[in-house]
Amino acid sequence: MLDRPEGEYRILTAATVPTHLAELADVVAVLGGGPSDWRVRDVADGNLNSVFLVDGPAGGVCVKQALPYARIHGEAWPLDIERATFEVGYARRLDPFVGRLAPRIHAYDPVQYVIVMETLEPHVVLRRSLIEGVHRPKVPDAVGDYVARAAFHTSDLANTFERKAADVAFFSGNLALQRISIDLVFTDPYTEVWRNKPVAPHLLAWAAAVREDVELKSAVAVERLKYLNKPQSLIHGDLHSGSVMATADDTRVIDGEFAWMGPTGFDVGTFVAHYVMAWFAKPFHDGDPAGNAAFRDLIRDDVVRFWTAFRDRFSALWDEVGPTGDAYPPGHFADAAGRARLAGLREAYLADVFRDAVAAVALKIVRRVLGYAQVADFLVIADPERQALAKAGALAFARSLLLRPERYPDLAALVNALPVFERAGLDPLRSRNW
Amino acid sequence: MLDRPEGEYRILTAATVPTHLAELADVVAVLGGGPSDWRVRDVADGNLNSVFLVDGPAGGVCVKQALPYARIHGEAWPLDIERATFEVGYARRLDPFVGRLAPRIHAYDPVQYVIVMETLEPHVVLRRSLIEGVHRPKVPDAVGDYVARAAFHTSDLANTFERKAADVAFFSGNLALQRISIDLVFTDPYTEVWRNKPVAPHLLAWAAAVREDVELKSAVAVERLKYLNKPQSLIHGDLHSGSVMATADDTRVIDGEFAWMGPTGFDVGTFVAHYVMAWFAKPFHDGDPAGNAAFRDLIRDDVVRFWTAFRDRFSALWDEVGPTGDAYPPGHFADAAGRARLAGLREAYLADVFRDAVAAVALKIVRRVLGYAQVADFLVIADPERQALAKAGALAFARSLLLRPERYPDLAALVNALPVFERAGLDPLRSRNW
Repeated sequence: MLDRPEGEYRILTAATVPTHLAELADVVAVLGGGPSDWRVRDVADGNLNSVFLVDGPAGGVCVKQALPYARIHGEAWPLDIERATFEVGYARRLDPFVGRLAPRIHAYDPVQYVIVMETLEPHVVLRRSLIEGVHRPKVPDAVGDYVARAAFHTSDLANTFERKAADVAFFSGNLALQRISIDLVFTDPYTEVWRNKPVAPHLLAWAAAVREDVELKSAVAVERLKYLNKPQSLIHGDLHSGSVMATADDTRVIDGEFAWMGPTGFDVGTFVAHYVMAWFAKPFHDGDPAGNAAFRDLIRDDVVRFWTAFRDRFSALWDEVGPTGDAYPPGHFADAAGRARLAGLREAYLADVFRDAVAAVALKIVRRVLGYAQVADFLVIADPERQALAKAGALAFARSLLLRPERYPDLAALVNALPVFERAGLDPLRSRNW
Repeated sequence: MLDRPEGEYRILTAATVPTHLAELADVVAVLGGGPSDWRVRDVADGNLNSVFLVDGPAGGVCVKQALPYARIHGEAWPLDIERATFEVGYARRLDPFVGRLAPRIHAYDPVQYVIVMETLEPHVVLRRSLIEGVHRPKVPDAVGDYVARAAFHTSDLANTFERKAADVAFFSGNLALQRISIDLVFTDPYTEVWRNKPVAPHLLAWAAAVREDVELKSAVAVERLKYLNKPQSLIHGDLHSGSVMATADDTRVIDGEFAWMGPTGFDVGTFVAHYVMAWFAKPFHDGDPAGNAAFRDLIRDDVVRFWTAFRDRFSALWDEVGPTGDAYPPGHFADAAGRARLAGLREAYLADVFRDAVAAVALKIVRRVLGYAQVADFLVIADPERQALAKAGALAFARSLLLRPERYPDLAALVNALPVFERAGLDPLRSRNW
């Protein structure tokens, strides 16, 4: 955590990055040579931070600096740079469990709020692959594996309550980005506020239907309270298809700055939501309709594979490592009847995660369609009516997940329902009872 | 938080207390005169700490020092003195809301871990009044009021998530006493470990029935996970009848050292549990049987009044103060339909608290009958078989609460069921299906 304990925070530029890195011995070793040998590229494309890729004679690194404002919005939206502390804390807490499923952290500078990590090249952000129709069949297994390992090893299953309380205390400090989550996910999309993107004319009826639906907002309130009151495991907090980078063979989860002790199902549902949005968007993308149709079948199968990978890894950890934390004292379940019951408790635990995930799928769809930070999967559809039709299907599905959760007892029910909502259309009343 | 920032921790004695207090200006002002004028009484009767009452010419104070071990057990059971920090933190957090329902804190010495507070005289510990048959009709209203104010004002109803996260972070440090709660409430009573009190011969069948019941231990596991994963509000954590002191007119809640951000229902259920144990014990106490029978009817009514007071105060705060925290954004429920729905959400919130309370009633009975820290309500019954009969009724009730919670949808169902279990008897099989 050392690296440059003195000095004042300064915003790095491509020109000043090499001088900064030259003081970090671990980073110099990775790059090789000296500052004059290093090539710097400004590659920021997320919403919040500066990102540079630096290449040296021996290798490359990725340099991420937290800015005192949201990069995408500018200085009018101040944002605490301490978020980098939580991103690094998240990465270091999970490193022993997820290993190469996340980028390696080379150094952290707590004065400049700079994280220097492994460069991911030629990795591509998953969202881009989904939009371009490049299938990454290993991603669902890898991300399911990642979420299961994180969820198990940071929960009461694997930890004494003392160890978990330390995580709860630490991540309770991640206030700036949790405020964003609470506002942008749970609050803003359901009302008219400045930060929401303007609603296109074709989608006005849907926006009104969502924002006037007190039953739906009640369901959201239940989920908001759960998010604030269920420190079940260390969650990524923003596990969308832009937080996953992959090649054909390698998958990494990045950008853990929204880390929070929260419901495991929030991460599960967030990742599913972005596949689901890709599924609803795909028929409206340019390209061969038959090709698009085939690709969306792959997306649907990826949802199943992700959940299956998560469930199987989580179950395997439970069986292999055992619930060694405070959740289930060994002395309570030591005999044959107890061991049999533990298997039942494991299924109940996973069913509870699934219920939370179903709600998170819906929350993440609504925020990405009606809120501030929208997604390219829909935005690349140039024709406004076609874009609205794609979004309407996703919104209809989300509404059903929130208002009729009993219809979605398992993942098969969830993916099998997708086609029901495909042609929901621009009149929200038509699909009110689905 | 000042008072004596330097120096080393030393265990106070009746002889050294005056010298210590003489350095605390606020305390000297309360007592009047000087150290040679002050009379010190050692009155410790709890399990963990030293307690002295000090009287001076102008007034008195109560001096409570955390010892580096559990007082009742001695130095063989080390215990972190930091617990006093959390007791003071709890008292100060709630002071603006509960006022004179708790003792006034005059000073806190973070070096000696000494809390100097208002003397409560001629207050008597509620447990003693219950055993002696002295009815305190104002206690249920006062404690219900106290729990409602604490629960509302420290929850997401009244706080931004940032304010609540600070409480979560702080009380996540109260490790030593939470370890005791987790072990002594949720784990030890259901197995055979050194700290449990030996089980009397007449109760052996019941102890075995509880400890071999995997269904019951599964229900306990659900509650343990909830306790660790539901930071709903700041709870006292040990709100039994020994944590309440009262006169005919004045009621105070003391001893908040088990403070934790947890389920509101845990405090509600703990307090009910100790009335319920008093109810099961009363017919076996010495004295006039008709008088005992009449007194237990008062106890039953006190349970109803406590819950009613809690519910009414909580509802009134919701209506008067309004849910101004992050739980229910005003913009989501602003119109007539929204306001009507909020009333429904309030009832659902209270129903959830009640469900958690039902489980806590059961957990607290089991721990007080089969665990380490037992209660005088039962222990004063000299005849071992009669004591076992009283305890068996309470255990049968607790088992039913844990295994058949659907039978207890409201408080009327709970108190009306009490007589069913009164004659459960020493054979646990007879009442297995209640």
